[in-house]
Amino acid sequence: MINNLGTITRGTEAVYLKEELAQRLVSGKPLRVKAGFDPTAADIHLGHTVLITKMKQLQDLGHQVIFLIGDFTAMIGDPSGRDVMRKPLSREQIDVNAKTYAEQVFKILDREKTEIRYNSEWMSQQSAADLVKLASTCTVARMLERDDFSKRYNSGQPIAIHEFLYPLMQGYDSVALQADMELGGTDQTFNLLVGRELQKHFGQPPQVVMTMPLIEGLDGVKKMSKSLGNYISIDESPEQMFGKLMSVSDELMWRYIDLLSLQPVEEIKQWRHEVDQGTNPRDVKVRFAREIVARFHSQAAAEQAYQGFVAQFKKGEIPADIAEYELTAADAQGLAIANILKGAQLTASTSEALRMIRAGAVKIDGQKIIDEKLIIHTEDPHIYQVGKRRFAKIKITRKKS
Amino acid sequence: MINNLGTITRGTEAVYLKEELAQRLVSGKPLRVKAGFDPTAADIHLGHTVLITKMKQLQDLGHQVIFLIGDFTAMIGDPSGRDVMRKPLSREQIDVNAKTYAEQVFKILDREKTEIRYNSEWMSQQSAADLVKLASTCTVARMLERDDFSKRYNSGQPIAIHEFLYPLMQGYDSVALQADMELGGTDQTFNLLVGRELQKHFGQPPQVVMTMPLIEGLDGVKKMSKSLGNYISIDESPEQMFGKLMSVSDELMWRYIDLLSLQPVEEIKQWRHEVDQGTNPRDVKVRFAREIVARFHSQAAAEQAYQGFVAQFKKGEIPADIAEYELTAADAQGLAIANILKGAQLTASTSEALRMIRAGAVKIDGQKIIDEKLIIHTEDPHIYQVGKRRFAKIKITRKKS
Repeated sequence: MINNLGTITRGTEAVYLKEELAQRLVSGKPLRVKAGFDPTAADIHLGHTVLITKMKQLQDLGHQVIFLIGDFTAMIGDPSGRDVMRKPLSREQIDVNAKTYAEQVFKILDREKTEIRYNSEWMSQQSAADLVKLASTCTVARMLERDDFSKRYNSGQPIAIHEFLYPLMQGYDSVALQADMELGGTDQTFNLLVGRELQKHFGQPPQVVMTMPLIEGLDGVKKMSKSLGNYISIDESPEQMFGKLMSVSDELMWRYIDLLSLQPVEEIKQWRHEVDQGTNPRDVKVRFAREIVARFHSQAAAEQAYQGFVAQFKKGEIPADIAEYELTAADAQGLAIANILKGAQLTASTSEALRMIRAGAVKIDGQKIIDEKLIIHTEDPHIYQVGKRRFAKIKITRKKS
Repeated sequence: MINNLGTITRGTEAVYLKEELAQRLVSGKPLRVKAGFDPTAADIHLGHTVLITKMKQLQDLGHQVIFLIGDFTAMIGDPSGRDVMRKPLSREQIDVNAKTYAEQVFKILDREKTEIRYNSEWMSQQSAADLVKLASTCTVARMLERDDFSKRYNSGQPIAIHEFLYPLMQGYDSVALQADMELGGTDQTFNLLVGRELQKHFGQPPQVVMTMPLIEGLDGVKKMSKSLGNYISIDESPEQMFGKLMSVSDELMWRYIDLLSLQPVEEIKQWRHEVDQGTNPRDVKVRFAREIVARFHSQAAAEQAYQGFVAQFKKGEIPADIAEYELTAADAQGLAIANILKGAQLTASTSEALRMIRAGAVKIDGQKIIDEKLIIHTEDPHIYQVGKRRFAKIKITRKKS
């Protein structure tokens, strides 16, 4: 149902404005739903898919989802050179990144039903005079209300003037696309609202803005992030993905389900009811892990990962309670695999560890380790296995200098 | 002499940087001297000519003067609509204004030696992306250092973001013109210095900036301005112009000479010396008034205005001491001529005043008055004459509400 307000707003952090959304849905006309992506990050983790999952929900309800690639701004980069993350990208780099992005995104979205647009389409047609006019629609004071700008301004950190233009150009994308709704992360709220204001300025009804929260990483505390090592990459093997999802706490599981599952709201209510009635939350976790693995791999791969997991349990291959270790790496480089195995008492010595690796008897999260010089530097816990019986859940922490 | 530092810096308010200027002059190469004009004001008064006089001095020394018309920004206007003075102008309006401006300017500058440029030449070629790059060269904090911006920001008055772009575009004009020097009013200091910074950014040696003061009006107190009525328009008749210049105080005379005379520094020193030795300052005033009238009319017109003035004195037509009156206008409209004449006791009644006007016997500053319904609303004193013998110097003040 195109106007299923419950599904549309499920898991959102905020909706501007809910009344407007309800009004727009009354007509039963599909909404044009914009979500913008920066073609700089090549591969994405589960945290990034919260937004895409929301797009998929909307797409499944019959709305027109627009996958907008911000290639124009990417080609400019940060000309002040202050932000090293925003180096100007060439057309070729952008195309490669956009393609990689699209490949990952279309594991979730239906490619056929998705409108793919590049903002260079209209922005490269804009003259300096057009941009002056665009800049005239917003005040300096309003722009300095943006959290990060106000912090930087008040702490004396430089803000280059072109940074004030980016939210306006992003907002103008909504005008060009005649968007009815824009989706973004909470951190994008200001920019998304600028889109509303610009649409009003250009005589369009202002888009509804829905923001999605950042999800917590596997630790359930910090936001999911590559640099924190608490993530699930959507390129991980079915077994790794399944294992990691099974390892999260019951509480975090419900959060992930809310933000990442495409099951109908009613179905999820039913799951909660079952758990309330005594069902082991692990059974729900299995359903959810299968859904996610199937999404990024295939139904068959999900089935296989599930069966592998069950088999391990049934055979007692993974004990119910695995010993947990926390090892400290001497430097930022991380720890060598042999030292880890010895440190967690999985082998008596590093030389035994090396022998076992060469014999193909060492696994991390079920994956056989080949490289005997492997250095581990992620901080999230993994399950290490030596032979058939020896298991440990090991977390590597770095020595604070 | 192209490197006459004394003439070049005479009357300037500030030079950034004097050492750089001296260095540049060493080579003996003509400087490219930029001065920008907004093609909005159609006619100009003597105050405006301070800058043009400086351009003329530089031109006479052999430097390349560039008369830059800011048509690009004029065509944009103030798109936020906050500044009613900056309505967008059409190409036709700009051409008319620029032509009128040029006609007046070339009463001073040598048209043949002047490079006339329009900034649309390069600015209309600039894309939105170019402008983003330009905007990246300056910070918000730096821009908020500009006096009027900081005042408005701190008092909560809105500053539209495009206003931050104008100083940058104006500065970019210096880059496009490869200016060695830019001239402007003191109020333009910030913008002119942005030009220096942009040239550095684009790998050019930064232009020397010379600012000229605003000159005081005929009252010697407030700056010369149309709205204050204390101005000499460069379109006024030779007689009016001559009379007004003769009416200024001795002190103000020296100030005007410093800023408006094209006489060599040495000549002016000589004048001062003469006055010190007992010469009546009025004689110096006459020389200066003749120079200015000749500039805006002709040598012959100046001679005639001078002779007329002398004749009046010689014939005792203007008494040495003219009675002075200050009349108060009841409202902002000013005072009717008949009321003025009666008020200053030049006529016994308003009906006598009207009769005298119809008879062609009433003059203001030597000019016959034809319109018997004339309303006077300027606040500077003028000399009113009825018949051959009746004179009064009358100042009209407006009633404060």
